[in-house]
Parts: sequence; structure tokens; C-alpha cells
Amino acid sequence: SLFLPGCWTTSEQASPPQGCFVHDCPEREIYMDYNATTPLEAEVVQTISEALWEAWGNPSSSYPAGLKAKAMIQQSRESVARLVGGQAQDIIFTSGGTEANNMVFHTAVEHFWRSREAAGQTRHGNVLPHIITSNVEHDSVKLAAEHLRTNGKADVTFVSVSRESARVEAQDVMAAVRPNTCLVSVMLANNETGVVMPVQQICEQVQAVNRRRQELRILLHTDAAQALGKIPVSARHLGVDFLTIVGHKFYGPRIGALYVDGPNSRTPLYPLLFGGGQERSFRPGTENTAMIAGLGKAAELVSAHLSDYAAHMQETRLYLEDRLKAVFGDQIRFNSHHPGSDILPNTCNVSILGPGFQVLEGWKVLSRCTRLLASVGAACHTHSSNRPSQVLLSCGVPDAVAANALRLSVGRTTTRADVDAVVEDLKEAVQLLSTSC
Amino acid sequence: SLFLPGCWTTSEQASPPQGCFVHDCPEREIYMDYNATTPLEAEVVQTISEALWEAWGNPSSSYPAGLKAKAMIQQSRESVARLVGGQAQDIIFTSGGTEANNMVFHTAVEHFWRSREAAGQTRHGNVLPHIITSNVEHDSVKLAAEHLRTNGKADVTFVSVSRESARVEAQDVMAAVRPNTCLVSVMLANNETGVVMPVQQICEQVQAVNRRRQELRILLHTDAAQALGKIPVSARHLGVDFLTIVGHKFYGPRIGALYVDGPNSRTPLYPLLFGGGQERSFRPGTENTAMIAGLGKAAELVSAHLSDYAAHMQETRLYLEDRLKAVFGDQIRFNSHHPGSDILPNTCNVSILGPGFQVLEGWKVLSRCTRLLASVGAACHTHSSNRPSQVLLSCGVPDAVAANALRLSVGRTTTRADVDAVVEDLKEAVQLLSTSC
Repeated sequence: SLFLPGCWTTSEQASPPQGCFVHDCPEREIYMDYNATTPLEAEVVQTISEALWEAWGNPSSSYPAGLKAKAMIQQSRESVARLVGGQAQDIIFTSGGTEANNMVFHTAVEHFWRSREAAGQTRHGNVLPHIITSNVEHDSVKLAAEHLRTNGKADVTFVSVSRESARVEAQDVMAAVRPNTCLVSVMLANNETGVVMPVQQICEQVQAVNRRRQELRILLHTDAAQALGKIPVSARHLGVDFLTIVGHKFYGPRIGALYVDGPNSRTPLYPLLFGGGQERSFRPGTENTAMIAGLGKAAELVSAHLSDYAAHMQETRLYLEDRLKAVFGDQIRFNSHHPGSDILPNTCNVSILGPGFQVLEGWKVLSRCTRLLASVGAACHTHSSNRPSQVLLSCGVPDAVAANALRLSVGRTTTRADVDAVVEDLKEAVQLLSTSC
Repeated sequence: SLFLPGCWTTSEQASPPQGCFVHDCPEREIYMDYNATTPLEAEVVQTISEALWEAWGNPSSSYPAGLKAKAMIQQSRESVARLVGGQAQDIIFTSGGTEANNMVFHTAVEHFWRSREAAGQTRHGNVLPHIITSNVEHDSVKLAAEHLRTNGKADVTFVSVSRESARVEAQDVMAAVRPNTCLVSVMLANNETGVVMPVQQICEQVQAVNRRRQELRILLHTDAAQALGKIPVSARHLGVDFLTIVGHKFYGPRIGALYVDGPNSRTPLYPLLFGGGQERSFRPGTENTAMIAGLGKAAELVSAHLSDYAAHMQETRLYLEDRLKAVFGDQIRFNSHHPGSDILPNTCNVSILGPGFQVLEGWKVLSRCTRLLASVGAACHTHSSNRPSQVLLSCGVPDAVAANALRLSVGRTTTRADVDAVVEDLKEAVQLLSTSC
């Protein structure tokens, strides 16, 4: 279907830009891929634009233009800290979640070797640092871990999620702990299923181990990319040392931050990059002032309105599930539903089976839709979209069901009318596919 | 002096934003710190804003919103390639120059070990990779190199610039080459003095060594952060394998790119980050579409107007030098002037000696100025500004002169009237300081 610029985005925007010709749209496209990325809130765009015009000075310069940029960065740091229940000094701005996650893995390895040195052991030995993560992490965790393993820099255990709960269970994490374990990294909510992981419980149990340990503390990390803006998140409450923040998942810009509980005081942090001393040398490079200001604004909005956002998304998603059940009956499988597990309010991973439960591959269904914009899984995996999601298979979803999966994720402004239209769209697409099979 | 938002920026902007109250300015501040950072061109801000509104889709998504973002990124890649005389596939977008420089150093070390492995040698031996750079590089090169050395990951030779020419002379680079040399990294133009380095000559001589070598090719890198937008730059013509591109030095946004001559075909490139496969996995992370689009626009402007920009800056800087000479006579020392060396058209590193050639520290002079916004050296070194610049000392500038140094760097819209006002401002500041001494 034809893409009309601005057209399908208008329902997300408080004040659409000039040039948006919504009235010309014959049939508005409907975005339900908010887990892939979100539009920016109008106030965030406004903040970025203002900063581009007015705060372009180098934040390291000591004249007022520099000081203004520096003050804007500090204000954002406080807003982002508030978002995750931390202190301003705990926030390190990064280029995005990928960099934040890679910093944590890099830090863990270095932490292992320095801990050994502090205990009087050498760097060369038979023991490698050991990292525990799950088998349903985002690629920026999964591939960072695999890289360390492939290059002989770390041992990695990918703990499988339970095929019943779709969660990484604390007992399974604990069973994987070894004397050389230096990091446990478990995402706060899965990007494909929306299942919320028991991070707090994992942290409690790992911290109990840490209290008994002398030489090597196990660092705790959660990638909160998909959780922020959807459920309340407090790093302190969770008990993590590191928490990854990604702007473009909560209506903010394409940068991120790493929360570190007291960088280099309570928690070790080793930089990946070396340079001009910005971000207290943890992450040098002239600051992207405008994007940082936008991230702060997006964080402020979440801090102020999370309960409204979440309630709306939850209501809309439940309505979507009801409509899907009403239209497709027993052809529907909700891949996000697992007994005892919480789901993000906005995420509906669903498979629509064809008549006689035939396999209607998800990407084929989407390609027959005229209005729905969604995906079959993580956006990064676009090009392998005709294979069933490994994440769903790991969660115990049968092959034939996983092959049909669609990830529908709603946003702050998705309406019941949008849901009705999407369900109608899906109905027609499935009918088309079923007759053509 | 009071900072009035928007006020001092108006002469840079084709269309100042609402809220700029230029007419209220009692005395407009004058920015002459374009080597620290530049304002964004109005067209660049426009491009970024449009992309924020209209191209917020995930570039990895296969529906039109994603494809639109992807197309915008590709267009920028072509514009940035054109800026440096490369092909689109040679451009890897990064968060900035710091990351680009760090990627090159990381790649060089990995390239060394893989070359040894390819030659049948093991990773563990007595030989370390050897890197040659200069002693006047930006911190993102200098500290990346020092980190490798401090951690026993590389040997580094910091070749001194000539105290006559202030350039890294090719013969001195060649004298430092060892059998285990795997990288030569020399900036294209110095940020403090504006002196242009003989990178082409260095590349020619190193390539002659490479033609005689079997096992280990010496990679060639130049950090072109300060040169782009000021002098013509062609990576092909220079003969480098890597070239660092920094948007905010040529009226673009706070991101950057690394030019790589045929990444992983003609030139090895090893990622620092692991993740979702973006930038052909050389630099994963959901793309900062808007900033990338802005970088492309800034590159297009340079490609279209460089000769005008350069001519204007050169004329303005020469006028500045003339006025300084006229007002301060033999109290003036131009730290950028070195026999036989080219200077960036916009950079005037100057020391104004007090009466009887007394030392008037640069930062004290600037702090007495009411209108001039400039710096005494690299912005990253703000907090060590009361020590003479190591770069100037390395270039043979005497201690007492270096202590007085001001870096005045003009921009595309700096006027003769600005120059007149700045020289007047300096005159009064120097008088104030001289009488108070």
C-alpha cells in the first residue's frame, strides 16, 4: 500500500508538522510496531529543535553558550535518573542501547581480571570470566556475549527461559552460577513476547551469593529497553548495578544511557572509548546536546504520565485480544500469554492459524494487510523473517504456531477504532491467504 | 557579560528561530570558536526536524516507514561519501569522531594479530602491535593510543612535530616504522594551530613500505575532523585507508562517520560493538536517522559551497591578522605561522604579549573580553586552560608566548565588522590587564 508521509503518524503527534496531508489519505495506515520504535512526542521534537538552534555551543566551552549546553545536559541527566529511580551521577549518556549493553559486557570482563589481580592472581590462567544471560536477549546482549565466547574472552551461559512461563527463572540463573561468574544480564521485558522477567528476584538471590563471596562480585545488569515507558522501573528497587535505557522505545530520540549505581564508586565501569573527557571519561566525545535534551524530555513525560500511558495501552491491548478472539475464535494463539507471567501492557504476540490450523506465515499475513504496520519479531531480524522466531520457540511455542506469529504492539495513541480496522484488515488478509493456499 | 539566548548566534543562521531577540541585544557577543564547534546551518536543522517528524520508522522495518528511513540514510551515506571522495559503501556512521578514531585503533590491533595468525604465528609472543601517531593529536587519538600502551596491548610511537614547520614530517614517521608497525594515524589539520599535515606524502611513503612487505600491511588513518568544510579533502587522493568525519565541525550535527576504503574487502574493519546488524554489523544499533540525514545535508552544503566558504574564511582570517598587527604591533605572535606550512583558512592562533612582553595569560585575556567568545585551545581541555598548550610547546612556541595563546577561529558568516569589534575588545582587555599587572 502507498506510503503517504506524515499520514499514518498523525494520530501520534500533538501538533503535526506542516506538510502533513492527513485529509488526502484514502485509507490511513495503522502503526502497531511500537516495540520496534516509537514516534517522538511533539514536545520532544520541540526540545530537540530548540537545542539545535540555541544550545549548539560546545558543552566543554567555558563561555555562556557552552555553559548553557552543559546545563541542559545536566537537566536531562536528572530527568533520566528520575525515570529509573537513580541519581544524576548514575547516568552515562551513550549513543544508544547497543553501546550501553556492550559497555556492561566490556566492564564485566575487565572487572573479573581486576578482581583477580586485586586478589593477587595473574591475568593469565586457565580461568575465564563467566557471564550468565538468557537465551531470549536482544542481539546487542546476545552477540556481545557470543563475541566474547567465540574469541576466548569469556565463558557464557545462556540460561533458557522456562517453556511454561517464558521467563528466565531465578533458580535457573542460580544453578548456572560458578565461582568465576562476574555478570548476570537479564532483560527486564522481552521485546517479542512482552513477558516481564523476574529481575528483582534474580538480583536478590545473586546478591545473597555476593554477600558470601570474597574475591569476585557478580555484577547485575538489566536491559530495560522495552520496559521503560510501559511499566514502572526502579533500578534501586530491582537491585541492579546497571540498567540500559533506550530513548526511541519511549517516544524519545535515538540515543540512550546507561544507569550505573555509583560509577567507579559502588560499581566498576570501564570505558569502551577514549577521548576528550566528556561523561567523566566513561564515555568521551562531544555531547550530542540536542538529542540528550530530547531524551530528558521524553523521560520527564514518562515520569509524569506513566500510569495514564500504561492504562491506555493495557486497555487497548486487551480490547485487541478480545476482538481477535471474537473474529478468529479457536484459530487464535496468544504467544505472550504464559501462566503466572506478567506481560508489558502494550504487547500482543499472536498467531492466527488458517482454516484447519494450516500454517499462514506471519510475514505473508502482514504483506497481505493494507493498513496494518507490524512485524513478526525484532526489527533487526527483518531479513530472516520467514523463519520462526527463536525467542518464541524458546518460550515453548510450537513450530507451526511460531511460524504464524505477528508482534502487534500498541502505543500511547492507538485507538479502539485503530484496533477494529486492524482486526478487519487481518481478517481479510487471512481470508485471501486461506483461499490462495 | 550576560548571555542572551539566540542573540550571539543570529549572524550564523539563515533563518533564526522564534524567540531570538536580537534587537534587545545591547552588545552582541561574537563567536570565534568555530574549531570547538559550529552552529548548525538552517537547512541542516530543517532536515533533522523533518526526519524527526516523518522518518521515525525503524530503518530495519520492511514497511514503507522503515524503507523511507532507510532511503534517507542511504542518501546521506552518498552525500558523506561525496564529501570525502569515497563510495557510499565506504561510509560507516558512528556516534562521532571519538568513536570513529577508537574503531580505527581497535581495528589496527586486531589486524596485527590476524595478520600474524595468517602468517602461521600465534597470538602470544614477545611482539606487540606497533602504532605511529603524532604528539599533537586530538585526545580521542592520543588517549586511545595511550590506553593501548598502558594496558600492554600495543607499542606506540608519538612522533614529534617539527618545531619549525609544526608538521609531522614524513621522514620522521618513516624513521619510526618497525616490522611490527600496523597503523600510522596522523591528523589532517591540527585543531589548535590549524597547521595542515603532509598526510598525502606520509601515505605515499608508507605505501611504498607496504609494497615491499609480505605479512603485515601498515594501515593509514587520518582524523579529518578539523579539515572538512575548510579545505578540499579526498581520501582517495590522500591515500588513506581510514578517515574520520565529524559533523559538528562543519555546521552539521553531533554525530560522525568513518570512511573506510572498502570495509572488509580492501581494508580490514573490526567492530567495537555487537548487536542488531545495522551498518553491515560494523556498527550496530538502531540508526539515528535524523542526525544521519542532517550529516548528509551538512556534507552536501560543503560539497556545493566549499570554495566560497573557504575563500570567505581565509579573507576574514587574513583581515583579522592584519588588524591584530595594526593594533598590537610587535606585541603579536602568530602561533599558526610556520615557514612552508599551510594553515586552515579559518584558524588564527595568536599570542598578545603585554607591554614589555609581559605574560598575559590567554584565559585572563578572554575573561576580560566583553564580546569575544573564543578559547585558548581544545575545548576538551577547558579545565586545564591555565597551563600553556602542550601542542603549542611541541610546535616550538616558547613557554611565555604559549601561555598567552588565544585560538581565534572564524566561520562562514564572520564579518569584518565582527573582526573590528573583536580586535577592539581585545585591545581593551589587554589594556585592563596591563594596568592591573
